[in-house]
Amino acid sequence: MLTRELIWPKSIVVVGASNDVAKPGGKLLKNLIENGFEGNLYVVNPRADEVQGIKAYASVDELPEVETAVLAVPAKLCPEMCLTLCRDKKTRGVIIISAGFSEESEEGKKLEQQIVETVNTYGASLIGPNCIGIITPAHASVFTTPVPKLDQMGCDFISSSGATAVFIMESGIPKGLHFASVFSVGNSAQVGVEDVLEFMDEVFDPKTSTRVKLLYIESIQNPDKLLKHASSLIRKGCKIAAIKAGSSDAGSRAASSHTGAMASSDSAVEALFRKAGIVRCYGREELTTVGCVFMCKEMKGKRMAIITHAGGPAVMLTDALEAGGLRIPQIEESDAKEKLKEHLFPGSSVENPIDFLATGNAEQLGAIIDACDNDFQEVDGMAVIYGSPGLFPVGDVYEVLNKKMHTCKKPIYPILPSVINVSDDVAYFLSEGNVNFPDEVLLGRALSKVANTPKPHTDEVFLDGVDIPEIRRIVDEADNGYQPPEIIHRLFDAAGIPRVQELVVKTPEEAALAAEKLGWPLVMKVIGPVHKSDVRGVVLNVHDQEIVLHEFNRLINIPETEAVLMAEMASGIELFLGAKYEDRFGHIMLCGMGGTMVEVLKDVTSGLAPLGMCEASSMIKNLKSYKIIKGYRGKEGANQRKFAEILVRLSSMLRFAVEIKEMDINPLLGKGDRILAVDARIRIEK
Amino acid sequence: MLTRELIWPKSIVVVGASNDVAKPGGKLLKNLIENGFEGNLYVVNPRADEVQGIKAYASVDELPEVETAVLAVPAKLCPEMCLTLCRDKKTRGVIIISAGFSEESEEGKKLEQQIVETVNTYGASLIGPNCIGIITPAHASVFTTPVPKLDQMGCDFISSSGATAVFIMESGIPKGLHFASVFSVGNSAQVGVEDVLEFMDEVFDPKTSTRVKLLYIESIQNPDKLLKHASSLIRKGCKIAAIKAGSSDAGSRAASSHTGAMASSDSAVEALFRKAGIVRCYGREELTTVGCVFMCKEMKGKRMAIITHAGGPAVMLTDALEAGGLRIPQIEESDAKEKLKEHLFPGSSVENPIDFLATGNAEQLGAIIDACDNDFQEVDGMAVIYGSPGLFPVGDVYEVLNKKMHTCKKPIYPILPSVINVSDDVAYFLSEGNVNFPDEVLLGRALSKVANTPKPHTDEVFLDGVDIPEIRRIVDEADNGYQPPEIIHRLFDAAGIPRVQELVVKTPEEAALAAEKLGWPLVMKVIGPVHKSDVRGVVLNVHDQEIVLHEFNRLINIPETEAVLMAEMASGIELFLGAKYEDRFGHIMLCGMGGTMVEVLKDVTSGLAPLGMCEASSMIKNLKSYKIIKGYRGKEGANQRKFAEILVRLSSMLRFAVEIKEMDINPLLGKGDRILAVDARIRIEK
Repeated sequence: MLTRELIWPKSIVVVGASNDVAKPGGKLLKNLIENGFEGNLYVVNPRADEVQGIKAYASVDELPEVETAVLAVPAKLCPEMCLTLCRDKKTRGVIIISAGFSEESEEGKKLEQQIVETVNTYGASLIGPNCIGIITPAHASVFTTPVPKLDQMGCDFISSSGATAVFIMESGIPKGLHFASVFSVGNSAQVGVEDVLEFMDEVFDPKTSTRVKLLYIESIQNPDKLLKHASSLIRKGCKIAAIKAGSSDAGSRAASSHTGAMASSDSAVEALFRKAGIVRCYGREELTTVGCVFMCKEMKGKRMAIITHAGGPAVMLTDALEAGGLRIPQIEESDAKEKLKEHLFPGSSVENPIDFLATGNAEQLGAIIDACDNDFQEVDGMAVIYGSPGLFPVGDVYEVLNKKMHTCKKPIYPILPSVINVSDDVAYFLSEGNVNFPDEVLLGRALSKVANTPKPHTDEVFLDGVDIPEIRRIVDEADNGYQPPEIIHRLFDAAGIPRVQELVVKTPEEAALAAEKLGWPLVMKVIGPVHKSDVRGVVLNVHDQEIVLHEFNRLINIPETEAVLMAEMASGIELFLGAKYEDRFGHIMLCGMGGTMVEVLKDVTSGLAPLGMCEASSMIKNLKSYKIIKGYRGKEGANQRKFAEILVRLSSMLRFAVEIKEMDINPLLGKGDRILAVDARIRIEK
Repeated sequence: MLTRELIWPKSIVVVGASNDVAKPGGKLLKNLIENGFEGNLYVVNPRADEVQGIKAYASVDELPEVETAVLAVPAKLCPEMCLTLCRDKKTRGVIIISAGFSEESEEGKKLEQQIVETVNTYGASLIGPNCIGIITPAHASVFTTPVPKLDQMGCDFISSSGATAVFIMESGIPKGLHFASVFSVGNSAQVGVEDVLEFMDEVFDPKTSTRVKLLYIESIQNPDKLLKHASSLIRKGCKIAAIKAGSSDAGSRAASSHTGAMASSDSAVEALFRKAGIVRCYGREELTTVGCVFMCKEMKGKRMAIITHAGGPAVMLTDALEAGGLRIPQIEESDAKEKLKEHLFPGSSVENPIDFLATGNAEQLGAIIDACDNDFQEVDGMAVIYGSPGLFPVGDVYEVLNKKMHTCKKPIYPILPSVINVSDDVAYFLSEGNVNFPDEVLLGRALSKVANTPKPHTDEVFLDGVDIPEIRRIVDEADNGYQPPEIIHRLFDAAGIPRVQELVVKTPEEAALAAEKLGWPLVMKVIGPVHKSDVRGVVLNVHDQEIVLHEFNRLINIPETEAVLMAEMASGIELFLGAKYEDRFGHIMLCGMGGTMVEVLKDVTSGLAPLGMCEASSMIKNLKSYKIIKGYRGKEGANQRKFAEILVRLSSMLRFAVEIKEMDINPLLGKGDRILAVDARIRIEK
């Protein structure tokens, strides 16, 4: 919950403000003043009458009412001050930049909890502790530089880590990335990344709100909230990219040592981001490059025109884009193409890449861009590469590019690599509000990433033929641990998951009846012995009543055998479904092909329950073994829609059975429309 | 062939020199003068008496003898001038920066050929045409900026593309990359990237030569030469990284349209680079980052200590390194670790990452680095992350880091992200000869790339039990096209490739004898009918003489049947071997698992014939399905050494049979030591 007082305060007090701008309390006050906070500004410092030209109060008790307080004092002083401020001074925004809380010690954790209780009691918002502060259009309450000049249409940036926030801004600013706001949430004692996102979702105004959010997350405390508001914002037209640091085991160790972040399993994060439609990044350079892509107009398809005055970068960009699934279509023959050729020097190429040579000029660039924007229907966007070998100025070229950036209907991605030779011209281009991608391959990868991130998925639960009350009854009655076949069968039947028909028989007569019911061929197995195969207790491919009788009599006499299980003999390709309950995230669903595909090649995709049909289909389509499931070279596969439906049904069932901590169906056998669960394990823990 | 006159000329003439430094001929002369060429400098310009303070000759005829000539005049004038220079003026170095040759037209191609004939006749070296020139310690004969101040221990840089060379320098210089020489070979009419590398190999001096080479290649004209000299240089202690642009189909199209580059199949390039030990890069940023890694001391293992004052970047770096197969080991308990802790502020972590907090200072950094270098035997290198939130100067920290960069035994990789907040301090650090990696994830990926590139492979041919004369006889006698089984069997027997034993029989008696020879179980197939299965002409798993007789009589009576083939029935996992002859590269060898693994999952690795045992083993180990070949969960695999040996034998055979353009063995069946070729196709084209 973010209060109006925190975002748009009419008054701010800096507690622990100093004249020494090498100290956080000094630098923060300086930043507030220099970035033009227009409300009443107070400072508290018991050892000075005046700080940076502002009258100092000796303690928070002496302050008048004040809407937001920034605390830069030792941790142990904070709880008391916070109480005074919220209780007596009507403070409803609190930013604590001090460290020494839960990230350091148990004692610090207690201090942090006291503060959270106070702010919750008084309905105040708390940012931090252990953060660099926030920057909103109203105030720059951060103790670090650079303080970017805010741009309403820049990106909102929320970070779990203060230092990383600084380094991300330093990575983005040289590329022309603008910021609309910056939130460093530190220990997220009350307000985490998810909460800031929730606030942005709630106040979103299609007319005035920025469309781009960048996140640096060390720990996802509330996956549901993140999913809800990220996907809601994206549905409203926003674009979100995020780093979730700590994807490797050692990385999680590093994250834990940092801000006490709980390591959440990486496939859960992956599934959550895909469901929400968040573009996942793995580094600062990648995040700010994707951020710059978001600043350009949206590309409505996957076909790029590469416009260049130098061959090499165009080739490398082509490689990167094609590797990422984008296309560089040939420009079709047309009058427009012929007309364009007349504008260009001999030797220029009007295929794609469109190469207008080292001598290519501003007027020619304009003509090419116009043709791509208006005439060449086979392209959806343009990447323009134009550097300088240092012979002559390129200001006129960048001026044309600048104009086209603003007027074209299709997006233009500028690649201006000569950051040394024409640094002034590049700086001018950026100063006009544009972005620059100095390296074409990093751009190519960022564009691919954006193009390959799915749209947010629906969170509707598929309930057709899923008997929730029955599922709840079964789970409530079940014991803890791995479940016996009866429970598994009842659950599958209640969820509408097709399974191999099985019957348990104890007499030859029952066996004969069962065979008639199940049809041929069938399988017979002993019930009782643990290692069924070792005692020759499994018979496959039984195809007449004579053998049923013969084998029944043999099997029932195997020691420890209590009964005989008779089942349909399913056939087809081996499929695999799995699910694991992940704290806070819910069930992570996995699908793939069974056997070596899952065991050796780890070819599985993941999604977050509950799944919709589109989401399940996209999980199946993203498998490397998808071709096998689809069927190839005349080999029959399994009906994908059916497979997706089983995945969806399973996820719906689990949504109402959080006690199922782990389960898999391995294998399901699939042959055309007939997909049957053959073997399954389910572990319940209440 | 590079002449002494080209590299260390005592005199240079710039033909087409101009007072206008916005023209190539003007800028080139300016660069030569400003970068202190110490020999005699002449200019030719018919329309001026003096150019940039140097007396101008009206034509090349009037010149005195001159060792190297740079031509910046229209293409059509070049052949004649070149002849005059080489024939009459003893010129032995020619650099043609002009365009308008083979990259533009057939006419231009002819001009280029005339020039090549001239320089070859007179034993001169030709750089270009269509290039930016070269920079050696003696002269900066380029028309572009920036002209890096050369550093004998910097990197040698060779580029197929002039503009790309400029952009690569502009990418490297801000990171502190130094250059020892720059060669832009343009159209490579006489001297290509491979030839410059050959020259560097031949003049290599372990005492004085630089160890790092960076290449940008658009077309590999002479793969053998590249392989020979790249691997030779690497064996001498050099490190080489290269971009081969045009890896996608569309990328090759772009490369072709650029300098008439012939698209070579990408797997051939991949195989060549692996065999040579070249680190393959895909973009400018990646190439220069790997170049900067090369500038650091060599890391002797895969275990990195991450030393940081900020958590986020350390987590992201950990993720990137672990994803790339490097390790971030925990620091073991020891006295040294305890002693180090005493140096640090409370709350610091001496695990790994070693986090000495936002307040961490220069003295502490020194102590940590010393401990890692001297005491912590579990680490092989250090990545040091230190930026600035803008509160206080960090010059003292960078000074300590600078000293340690020079004195430590283990490599240090500096990550100084605050390129805005402390740009001056970073500039100072670079000016001391250091490199900087502003983004930790790009560093992590570059380090992984370097660590995962194999050492150069031996080029010895394995000949033990490979009967080359017999192979030649068989190939010489063979017709063009797909080969019949007899030829394939003879070839395999000559190369020592084990295969399933087969016998052709025409009578029941022969069948009985054959069965005794082959052993049980066996397979019987009709010879004659095309669709053997459709006519029920295949019998598997035959295991006694009675069935042999029964089935022989049935099979021989199937229409069109001429005889019956009897074969051992091999079993085990399906393996795949393939080879394809690629112009200029020779045979590309492929290996993998058969069936869906190769058909659907494309899980194959490639190598260049002839293969050594190590190389073949590494191909097998790099397969995703390696675990299956090795055997897993009690399932028997195939002997890897045997599989590797078959791959090696096949490659040795092909080395002497270039007429075999395509072949595959699919499947080989492998079970433990027994690996047998079951089915093979070989296409010969003479």
